[in-house]
Amino acid sequence: MIETIKSPADLRKLPIVILPEIAGEIRDQMLKTVSRSGGHLASSLGSVELSIAIHYVFNTPKDILLWDVGHQTYPHKMLTGRFDRFPTLRQFGGLSGFPNKDESPEYDPFTCGHSSTSISNALGMVIARDLKNETNKVIAVIGDASLAGGMSFEALNHAGHMAKDVVVILNDNERSISKSVGALSRYLNRIIAAPTYNKIRLDVEKLVKRIPRWGFRAYRAARKLEEGLKNLLMPGMLFEELGFRYFGPIDGHNITQLVTTFRNLIDLHEPILIHVITKKGKGYKFAENDPAAFHGTGPFDLETGKKADAGGQISFTQAFGDKIAQLAGMDPKIVGITAAMLDGTGFGKFAAVFPERFFDVGISEEHAVGLGAGLARGGFRPVITIYSTFLQRGYDQMIHDVCLQNLPVIFCLDRAGLVGEDGPTHHGVFDIAYMRNMPNLTFMAPASPEELKKMLEFAFTVNGPVAMRYPKGSALPGGNIDAPIRLGKAEVLRTGRDVAIVALGSMAGAAMESASLLSNKGFEATVVNARFIKPLDEELITSLCKEIKKIVTIEDGILEGGFGSSVLEFIEKASLNGVKVRRIGLPDAFIEHGKRSELFSKYNLTPPAICDVIVKEVLT
Amino acid sequence: MIETIKSPADLRKLPIVILPEIAGEIRDQMLKTVSRSGGHLASSLGSVELSIAIHYVFNTPKDILLWDVGHQTYPHKMLTGRFDRFPTLRQFGGLSGFPNKDESPEYDPFTCGHSSTSISNALGMVIARDLKNETNKVIAVIGDASLAGGMSFEALNHAGHMAKDVVVILNDNERSISKSVGALSRYLNRIIAAPTYNKIRLDVEKLVKRIPRWGFRAYRAARKLEEGLKNLLMPGMLFEELGFRYFGPIDGHNITQLVTTFRNLIDLHEPILIHVITKKGKGYKFAENDPAAFHGTGPFDLETGKKADAGGQISFTQAFGDKIAQLAGMDPKIVGITAAMLDGTGFGKFAAVFPERFFDVGISEEHAVGLGAGLARGGFRPVITIYSTFLQRGYDQMIHDVCLQNLPVIFCLDRAGLVGEDGPTHHGVFDIAYMRNMPNLTFMAPASPEELKKMLEFAFTVNGPVAMRYPKGSALPGGNIDAPIRLGKAEVLRTGRDVAIVALGSMAGAAMESASLLSNKGFEATVVNARFIKPLDEELITSLCKEIKKIVTIEDGILEGGFGSSVLEFIEKASLNGVKVRRIGLPDAFIEHGKRSELFSKYNLTPPAICDVIVKEVLT
Repeated sequence: MIETIKSPADLRKLPIVILPEIAGEIRDQMLKTVSRSGGHLASSLGSVELSIAIHYVFNTPKDILLWDVGHQTYPHKMLTGRFDRFPTLRQFGGLSGFPNKDESPEYDPFTCGHSSTSISNALGMVIARDLKNETNKVIAVIGDASLAGGMSFEALNHAGHMAKDVVVILNDNERSISKSVGALSRYLNRIIAAPTYNKIRLDVEKLVKRIPRWGFRAYRAARKLEEGLKNLLMPGMLFEELGFRYFGPIDGHNITQLVTTFRNLIDLHEPILIHVITKKGKGYKFAENDPAAFHGTGPFDLETGKKADAGGQISFTQAFGDKIAQLAGMDPKIVGITAAMLDGTGFGKFAAVFPERFFDVGISEEHAVGLGAGLARGGFRPVITIYSTFLQRGYDQMIHDVCLQNLPVIFCLDRAGLVGEDGPTHHGVFDIAYMRNMPNLTFMAPASPEELKKMLEFAFTVNGPVAMRYPKGSALPGGNIDAPIRLGKAEVLRTGRDVAIVALGSMAGAAMESASLLSNKGFEATVVNARFIKPLDEELITSLCKEIKKIVTIEDGILEGGFGSSVLEFIEKASLNGVKVRRIGLPDAFIEHGKRSELFSKYNLTPPAICDVIVKEVLT
Repeated sequence: MIETIKSPADLRKLPIVILPEIAGEIRDQMLKTVSRSGGHLASSLGSVELSIAIHYVFNTPKDILLWDVGHQTYPHKMLTGRFDRFPTLRQFGGLSGFPNKDESPEYDPFTCGHSSTSISNALGMVIARDLKNETNKVIAVIGDASLAGGMSFEALNHAGHMAKDVVVILNDNERSISKSVGALSRYLNRIIAAPTYNKIRLDVEKLVKRIPRWGFRAYRAARKLEEGLKNLLMPGMLFEELGFRYFGPIDGHNITQLVTTFRNLIDLHEPILIHVITKKGKGYKFAENDPAAFHGTGPFDLETGKKADAGGQISFTQAFGDKIAQLAGMDPKIVGITAAMLDGTGFGKFAAVFPERFFDVGISEEHAVGLGAGLARGGFRPVITIYSTFLQRGYDQMIHDVCLQNLPVIFCLDRAGLVGEDGPTHHGVFDIAYMRNMPNLTFMAPASPEELKKMLEFAFTVNGPVAMRYPKGSALPGGNIDAPIRLGKAEVLRTGRDVAIVALGSMAGAAMESASLLSNKGFEATVVNARFIKPLDEELITSLCKEIKKIVTIEDGILEGGFGSSVLEFIEKASLNGVKVRRIGLPDAFIEHGKRSELFSKYNLTPPAICDVIVKEVLT
């Protein structure tokens, strides 16, 4: 069946009773592909019926559909002309794992991958529609975790005020990557549980009338009764207060109920919010039982749910997790913060052992940084782990709440550099450029997981803000891990008189290999593990400039304003003359998805490519 | 009286009946000082009684007090040992116009000036307190406009979930700088207006019981009744849903009522929100009548409320306002967006003439950018004006929602560079560094208000994202305003063989004056108005490198990753040898407050200072 659906128009020709069959076929195809290639399985398993129902009722692509974050769009892709290409998912040159405007300008209005943007974008398209006097619907589908992001609230606040015809579908699976947290999440749970209150409804109403408006003493007793009453009278009051009409909750795996509801609501022309309950991982028992493990997964065995072994090397993430748990055991002032990335950043061990000192704030990067600032001001040593690309959401807070105050908050940016299959929305390639300009910040990059441990220990000795960035996975051994970390001091890994390669972080291993290749060609290179982006090791750079005069910098970030630029700036500041510098790094462009190794090859960050550039552009 | 209050402890010794007198004295002193020096008058006039009542009831500084944004803290400063120094307000070396940790580590836990951070910071300090088993209160005072910022919602969501003892005082004056907007604002108004519903309370309750939960047809009629009922039963439901206990509304100018309320609530140990109604500009009729004009004001005549004439020169802001209104008259696709900076960014004329095409989203920079992205995807040409420092809040959205999509959104960053008296939280010195690394972005800086007009017109011819940055006030004439703007092309203002000065934006005038000074000393300089930060005029830079070999760049931004660095990067990329570059700009530090002219002097950005650097470091 599913092969015959070339567009949603084909879907809409089918009788409603056929739709569950389509859902089954979509799930089968998804499991087949993702078990082989990896991907965001659990969220997409949860959105199968919802995707079908939306495309069945709404007139897509004339009606515009925006998926928040977008990792739940595999069924959407299969229904919008991309079924044939689905087996190429997340492969270099293949289908993106997220909505992608270049892949499908018709059905993916935005390339996306960050959370909480859909209502803002939708409202913009709604206003545009009304100014053009057009009549299409605009639908934003957003998860409960994404709804808690501040940008969503800003957008709800404005949309409710504008009172425009916009449809928000809240896809509530009670989860972000981890279990959802926060008052909003509890609130949604109370709505779902509301029917149980029905029996006491009248009693509650009678009692509540006796609660004095200013009853300071009485209120504790009255509290529980009120809560029950609120949900009974009108579930979704919070959204109603913000100007949305609330409908729900609805079973998100019952296609008939979804279709009926959407059809009933299609003629309303005001802000409406439809609360749909789904199960993350639906239809695949291993994912249902452990949705976090199947949120973003590598290849796995369909029969057993067992994942392919990731290999023996310890990752940066694991090294962080082990070390922070160890340090926290010795220093009760250490507290941990993440923004819905508990497992992904390796904080699991810390959180399990010291739950009272660990805070997962959900998808709230701005608050995560502000909270860390408050904890530091209160005398604690907060460690905030957020993926590099998502910390972009806390850029202002890093400057205003932390660096301006010179507070000792430690930022650990996992997934820095190229992340691989998740593509342009997830590569952590801007962090060097956007953090290097923050006054008071100490900024490091470890060459290896072992060095990360030493740097983390060192970070606690700095009485001010510290950041460190490190990539997904592991890295080639960087150098002598016994050399102590000293502020603003790089590590010389190898000496040679022809060229000095200054490598940042996990590029150190590639630099060492390049040096071997150069040596084979008769050139001897000095290789430096930079360790510090800020402060730069000015003494070492000075001596390299004076003695070798040829310097190559290597970084897995965008070159504009990057690490190499800081070397150029220092050479200018110090008036060092006659030095030739070549910066190697990522170009001024958004980088596509693909295996990390494929991307490193394409962007000349492999040892042979580095060797080539040095021979052709520096040594001749 | 007020002179005798050296700390809040002194205040707490006074009988409550004296407090209104203190309030009067604070207002007198504030009016005296601000009418002479300028400042954030209206907000601080509105917070006099609130400041007194908080310090009277709570045991500051053991009880920790955080003021959101912080421009309303003049009374707080006078009550916390800074009365004597108050006449130095906002002057170079004098008191800061915002909370400042260096000025008063005891009473100002954070140097602040950006909105919506207080609840995050407070929650961090609350958690720190509880981990230390201490018992002080932590109080965040936040305005209704700041509460609408996404970071506030993230923090409320987490605080409600944590159920910790934290006090949020909502200082509701129904205004940001302009009138508050958004559903939250309307909601707060409904609470205030709720007593008028009292008469129909019973009728409403009777009717609402008949509303079917899924009454698609009946709901319109029932809607109004519901709204009334919600507020009657429990005002502040929205906050209650998020886990806060709501109290209010309270008259924020009635000290006795404030003191009584605070005393009543001090023994509650859970998240509470106290809704206080104040009047912006309270006690000074001109400010009460036009609070926007007295939000941030220059010197004015106390008797008449008349402001000192700002001088004849047209400002960048005015030039933007005139031009955008003109362009919008010709192109119906142009839409305007700001984030609570309607007048400050010059959008008044546009908003008045085309209200249906203008959107003030309130303090919601993230949403402002996301909304612009949606409007652009819908075929419109959005122009977003936000102060440089506040657009830091939309950094991620600029990358993810706009540049990644390559959408034609135009960002106009007013108050770029040094803003003067508002100090470190408000200087727009990071923008070049943080925006220069965004792929697809065209980034300009006009030398003069006249050039801004031409650049704005040019911006609409670019089919992708465009940003332009310009300072507060005006600028020395930059050059030939008849020279057309061409993509990536700079303008040569003057030729000379000894040195090439490449000046960015409003620095062009200073560069021309420096060239005159150099000429007096016998050196002839080429002066270039760079116009484009990105793309850089590589052709011109190449010829300057080859012909003059000595290049000085000037920018009013932080040097790390700034405009000068882009010149260094290009020289490296193009392998141009033997070129001496000197970058002039702001150091890697937070810049204090003071008159713009004083700061330009201190940081060597005046023509004589520039001339000096060039003679000493480049020409000899």
